Amino acid sequence: MDFSKIKKPTLLLDESKCRKNIRIMAGKASSSGTIFRPHFKTHQSAEIGKWFRDEGVDSITVSSVTMAKYFAGAGWNNITIAFPVNLREIEDIAKLAESISLNILISDYEQVSFLKMRILNNAGYFIKIDTGYNRSGIEWNEKVQILRILDEMNYNSSIRFSGFLTHSGHTYKAGSTKHITDIYNDTLLKFAPLRALSADKIILSAGDTPSCSIMHDFKGFDEMRPGNFVFYDLTQYFLGSCRLDNIALTVACPVVEKNNRRQEIIIYGGGVHLSKESVRINDGRIIFGKAGLYDESGWVQVSDNDFLRSLSQEHGIISASEELFNSVNTGDIVGIIPVHSCMTADLLRQYHTYDNRVMSDFSPK
Amino acid sequence: MDFSKIKKPTLLLDESKCRKNIRIMAGKASSSGTIFRPHFKTHQSAEIGKWFRDEGVDSITVSSVTMAKYFAGAGWNNITIAFPVNLREIEDIAKLAESISLNILISDYEQVSFLKMRILNNAGYFIKIDTGYNRSGIEWNEKVQILRILDEMNYNSSIRFSGFLTHSGHTYKAGSTKHITDIYNDTLLKFAPLRALSADKIILSAGDTPSCSIMHDFKGFDEMRPGNFVFYDLTQYFLGSCRLDNIALTVACPVVEKNNRRQEIIIYGGGVHLSKESVRINDGRIIFGKAGLYDESGWVQVSDNDFLRSLSQEHGIISASEELFNSVNTGDIVGIIPVHSCMTADLLRQYHTYDNRVMSDFSPK
Repeated sequence: MDFSKIKKPTLLLDESKCRKNIRIMAGKASSSGTIFRPHFKTHQSAEIGKWFRDEGVDSITVSSVTMAKYFAGAGWNNITIAFPVNLREIEDIAKLAESISLNILISDYEQVSFLKMRILNNAGYFIKIDTGYNRSGIEWNEKVQILRILDEMNYNSSIRFSGFLTHSGHTYKAGSTKHITDIYNDTLLKFAPLRALSADKIILSAGDTPSCSIMHDFKGFDEMRPGNFVFYDLTQYFLGSCRLDNIALTVACPVVEKNNRRQEIIIYGGGVHLSKESVRINDGRIIFGKAGLYDESGWVQVSDNDFLRSLSQEHGIISASEELFNSVNTGDIVGIIPVHSCMTADLLRQYHTYDNRVMSDFSPK
Repeated sequence: MDFSKIKKPTLLLDESKCRKNIRIMAGKASSSGTIFRPHFKTHQSAEIGKWFRDEGVDSITVSSVTMAKYFAGAGWNNITIAFPVNLREIEDIAKLAESISLNILISDYEQVSFLKMRILNNAGYFIKIDTGYNRSGIEWNEKVQILRILDEMNYNSSIRFSGFLTHSGHTYKAGSTKHITDIYNDTLLKFAPLRALSADKIILSAGDTPSCSIMHDFKGFDEMRPGNFVFYDLTQYFLGSCRLDNIALTVACPVVEKNNRRQEIIIYGGGVHLSKESVRINDGRIIFGKAGLYDESGWVQVSDNDFLRSLSQEHGIISASEELFNSVNTGDIVGIIPVHSCMTADLLRQYHTYDNRVMSDFSPK
């Protein structure tokens, strides 16, 4: 990586770490006999999509109709939009279903009266099940409601039932890997009986990154849809989903000022680059990223005492160890390991690889 | 506003409220005999810039070299980059100083040894003073350090001293308007004696939005640089800087699901649209926006019981009053008043006005 050319906050992607993350997850799904349908909302990049293709992936997940159109345009022809169906985009959905194998999500009975009247070119639908995250979906034990949806949708022969889909996002609040394992097992326990609600061969789809990273086997589920693992980040690190050196994404930021009195380093790199996502670390402090220097391999060497304590729109304030503080000068580059790589990638929308390629093709919003 | 065309999270701008916010602030600066140099980082829009021009504004503030180049391209020829000088962009700065009247910021002695050797085409520099915010700058009482900078920079005849600049961002943590007034007065008290450090006629520049909104008179300061007031937002509302109906920016979001059990409304509108900025309200809850229905004037009618309790990448979860919950259907549009309009505008980068214009010209990052 040629750091001399970096003038502004720049998203650096370690291709080999990223490809390794993809390979490990694809391998785990494969050895479990589980469909791997990775969530592309994390990277939103047609070029990174190709790295998944290299590992044999042919079906993907996205979180918006816009993203589905973008990846369909990049050659993906089997896409699940894992987001409650947006009735206002039904024309776009119908059009997309003409050209690719598309799955949408029914998460609420109110959507059914609208959808059962629409011609949807043999699209598939999943019923979104809430197994404890409390964000979206029908509660796992509301069988009457689920059967009512299946029954009503049965009148529409232009759309077929694909299965049940859940996202156990409450793993992100877990206090330990044991807790993540418990949530994974609890999800399976609540989810598995749903299979009996349909006579057809259906798919049980799950797969948050913490669960998928910690579990060694996905048996019981038919499909896994993790997304964040492609890059990982500090949130995943503190959850125990990855090691620090599995993280494939960092932000290179110019040092613009040093404050001796507070032993702080001020960088060009703020909320519009890194996002305002924060994570609470063990000692109770809220941090916005870890900070350090790039070594020759392009990795950021961090200690527990070097972290972003605050972000404004363009400023980041690093609370620095004496060691980092003394080895950095104004005008140097420091590396930031982001708290939430999905948000950081969405803000910077351009990946710089270590062989100096710039990948700017990114899904529109 | 034609809401029928809205399919995705859409940034709506009430031009008349926005123009009124500009007019009031310009008038206050004018009657105080203070230069009004508004911060354009909030809107980042050449077209909104023209509305300032209509109120007689001819000098502006930005927070990056990129933004300075963007607004210079839009015809602004008097720009202060109120961000610690980024030595890695010195070529761009020098080039820009050839065509416009440019001010940069020295916030640290380390920058001086570099800057005193550069030809900067009669650019101006401010010394950034920290009057209590603890983000950036030389502490107000470090006179020896300040005199040392003035002395060294004196050797460079291609750059002139413009004055002292501060940003009392600690007003954003104030618990009351009385507290904001106290910070304003404290800033003036610490700042005013600096005038004696230079024999030249210099500028004392300040101006955070909370102070500028609450104070009626800016006497003592020569220049004010508020930014956020152009739109205002929930943060300013809770600080007491504005009324709710002064807020010029809302985000129109499709309702994609309703959850009866939790009385929650799920919208298409998440962290990539609104940002993850939150604000703690009186009862201790953390909220990510206020939610309600648009009335005929385009304003969002909100109650204290309708707010965004959580945001994911694309989902927003509204904790709803019975009234809002019952009057909204899946497929409808709800309005969100954002917590931090600067971040929300930066994410959506496109303003839709109530006369159905789309203003997409936006500063690159």
